[in-house]
Amino acid sequence: MKPKVLRGMRDLLPEVMVRRNDVVARLEKVFESYGYRPLQTPAMEYYEVLTGKYGEDADRLLYHFLDNGKRHVGLRYDLTVPLARVVAMYPELPRPFRRYQVAPVWRAEKPHRGRHREFFQCDADIVGSPALLVDAEIVALIGDALSSLGIEAFEILLNNRKLLDAIGEAAAVDPHGIPLLCRSLDKLDKIGRHGVESELARRGFEASQVAVVFQILEVDGGPLERLEQLRKRLVASEAGTAAVADLWRVVELAGIAGVSMEKIRIEPALARGMDYYTGTIFEAVSRDVKLGSIAGGGRYDGLIGQVGAKQGLPAAGVSFGLDRLLLVLEELGLSDDTRLAPVQVFVTLFDEASTPVALEICQKLRRSGVRTEMSYETAKLGKQFRHAARIGAALCIVAGPDELAADSVTVKDLRDRSQESVPRDRLVEVVRGRLQTGGG
Amino acid sequence: MKPKVLRGMRDLLPEVMVRRNDVVARLEKVFESYGYRPLQTPAMEYYEVLTGKYGEDADRLLYHFLDNGKRHVGLRYDLTVPLARVVAMYPELPRPFRRYQVAPVWRAEKPHRGRHREFFQCDADIVGSPALLVDAEIVALIGDALSSLGIEAFEILLNNRKLLDAIGEAAAVDPHGIPLLCRSLDKLDKIGRHGVESELARRGFEASQVAVVFQILEVDGGPLERLEQLRKRLVASEAGTAAVADLWRVVELAGIAGVSMEKIRIEPALARGMDYYTGTIFEAVSRDVKLGSIAGGGRYDGLIGQVGAKQGLPAAGVSFGLDRLLLVLEELGLSDDTRLAPVQVFVTLFDEASTPVALEICQKLRRSGVRTEMSYETAKLGKQFRHAARIGAALCIVAGPDELAADSVTVKDLRDRSQESVPRDRLVEVVRGRLQTGGG
Repeated sequence: MKPKVLRGMRDLLPEVMVRRNDVVARLEKVFESYGYRPLQTPAMEYYEVLTGKYGEDADRLLYHFLDNGKRHVGLRYDLTVPLARVVAMYPELPRPFRRYQVAPVWRAEKPHRGRHREFFQCDADIVGSPALLVDAEIVALIGDALSSLGIEAFEILLNNRKLLDAIGEAAAVDPHGIPLLCRSLDKLDKIGRHGVESELARRGFEASQVAVVFQILEVDGGPLERLEQLRKRLVASEAGTAAVADLWRVVELAGIAGVSMEKIRIEPALARGMDYYTGTIFEAVSRDVKLGSIAGGGRYDGLIGQVGAKQGLPAAGVSFGLDRLLLVLEELGLSDDTRLAPVQVFVTLFDEASTPVALEICQKLRRSGVRTEMSYETAKLGKQFRHAARIGAALCIVAGPDELAADSVTVKDLRDRSQESVPRDRLVEVVRGRLQTGGG
Repeated sequence: MKPKVLRGMRDLLPEVMVRRNDVVARLEKVFESYGYRPLQTPAMEYYEVLTGKYGEDADRLLYHFLDNGKRHVGLRYDLTVPLARVVAMYPELPRPFRRYQVAPVWRAEKPHRGRHREFFQCDADIVGSPALLVDAEIVALIGDALSSLGIEAFEILLNNRKLLDAIGEAAAVDPHGIPLLCRSLDKLDKIGRHGVESELARRGFEASQVAVVFQILEVDGGPLERLEQLRKRLVASEAGTAAVADLWRVVELAGIAGVSMEKIRIEPALARGMDYYTGTIFEAVSRDVKLGSIAGGGRYDGLIGQVGAKQGLPAAGVSFGLDRLLLVLEELGLSDDTRLAPVQVFVTLFDEASTPVALEICQKLRRSGVRTEMSYETAKLGKQFRHAARIGAALCIVAGPDELAADSVTVKDLRDRSQESVPRDRLVEVVRGRLQTGGG
């Protein structure tokens, strides 16, 4: 047997995990500042809860099987459908209900760089209010979250599902054809206008329809200018006019909430795959690192009714992709490496007889909050120092027979190779002092 | 369609999650103080990685299926086997390798109180050293972790797998019968001596064998006294003598590491289900709340070779059961409720015209670290205050036309019903002051 990991799945070793945990902690702090609270749902759901919500392509990517009790179960594909199920099940939850969840999801996709079959989503959603203030608040949250990670050069792309409907309508696309149209338009930045045109032709759209669609889509300028262009082109459509007015209000409120207009881009082709969006659609991208979206979401007023709630409820939310965020931070040189070596002190072991003293020192440091490892072997001190340096410790402690006799210990600073003899009862103080100064 | 969750699986709503997150954060802090670093492995593994490691009973509880690529995959049953697989795959990891992991595992067990089909384990393991210092360090870690949660009345039960072998040997049990014997003995605290005796009889053990086993098991007094009793009874057995000596050393070192002897109990019947243990076996229980073990683990020197490492490696670790820990904390009245209402301030909405001001106030508070929600509706102020109180906010902010005219806002303290008018540029300062004092 050769030990191996499944294709598209990953082990995240400590160096990577420390960075990820740091990013998650920052996101959670921003979520909490907006009043979101943590929720956890099971990895497994009844298959019927999951299927039919995301669109056909997505349904094929679900992991599903019969459990020991012959129930048809699936692994969650995102955190939004489980949230909808929770809201449908617990009518006692406060309204609006703001929740965040950081958890893995599973999709049997073809793996490539930055796309895995198991990946973590960090979601924040608000359930229970149709107000455009909600949509604007989420745009502001995206901005604050990215800023908290040090990403300042970002853009938040905005669209509205009803605008896509109106564009389809203006091009005389059959209502059933709209999801198809959306799915092709979504690939615009990947396969370009020409690619989308040929895909739409293959899917049976007429050239004249495609031409109308692209005439409407071509916008330029700041967000309000683009909305003005769209407003004029869709003036005959009730849905189009309403969608433009909604986007206008969201942009305006996001501006009041402190999001710079330069960071907002109206992107009328944006659809974001999921069939369940009904209103505003968001997507955040880095300006400097072209890796696709680092966050995305939208309004999905129909989903909660669809999973079986007696009464449908409006809802909107955003999902941050942890893998993409980490890639962007790495490319930008913004990875926080300060916690990469969590071991601060390495306590050496001189000989068997000094084990009790070494262990005592170790425990004293740990209980005073210093991250401490001790040697389990009485190898040569030089070898122990090299091991300590390799695991990133700043200080080594030596408590050999000489030190024991004098009731002292030697503190060796691996950063500047200085060392000093310290009375045992002052050790914690000296260690803390040295760790704070970052080198003697 | 009725929205529902799978049997044995759970949604954890915010009130519960806040408590769980607090417990996890405390455990992680202790793990890090000992130099453990975070690791993450996929939820899914090749079935052959998981099977045959835990024992037959456990194998039947594995969730497993064929994925879209016809690979036989399983959901992880614990965090130990995946760790062993990781260590076998990455020889470049430092030795000793200390890792912690907090993650869900899945077992298709019959659910009952405190036992679920998806549950979180919090594991800390050390790979690469056979030293008994490792075992002692883990005993100390268990103690520090429980203390950090406020649980002081606990006991750490200790045994050694080799001691169980020696007891079996002394009773002339065939080596293949030892795992069976262990599995029955493990139920001693659940089904009592009589229950174990009849189970062993059913399994084909002779009455004389069972009598010998129970003669050896009967120990009393402190840990060293019990070890002395066992030493005498097993003096003819090499394995037994070695096991007693090992336990003696672990107890001694744990004492030096600061664990009170009153908190350690030698429990020669303790086996803890898993077939993979080879040396020391630990289990922690609360003295006040009888809910079974809240942490458990041991030494498993054979497992890493078993999952395909070229070279076997010694290893030992402990797993904390989050659900049990939370039940114990609840029973002890130690649940930390201070973070239960993460919303500190609720910004009311007077009318449509005051939306921009309310939103600005909101964002200013959020960015200064105050957890703030705002109203999305211009309902009557009384209704908004009631909503704020319901979600646990301490303060409400009102910015109506009078306030706008005076460039001020009203801060209403929901705890003592006091209120004051505050210039807008002093709002953050006043809010922070009030939140710190906990009521005007």
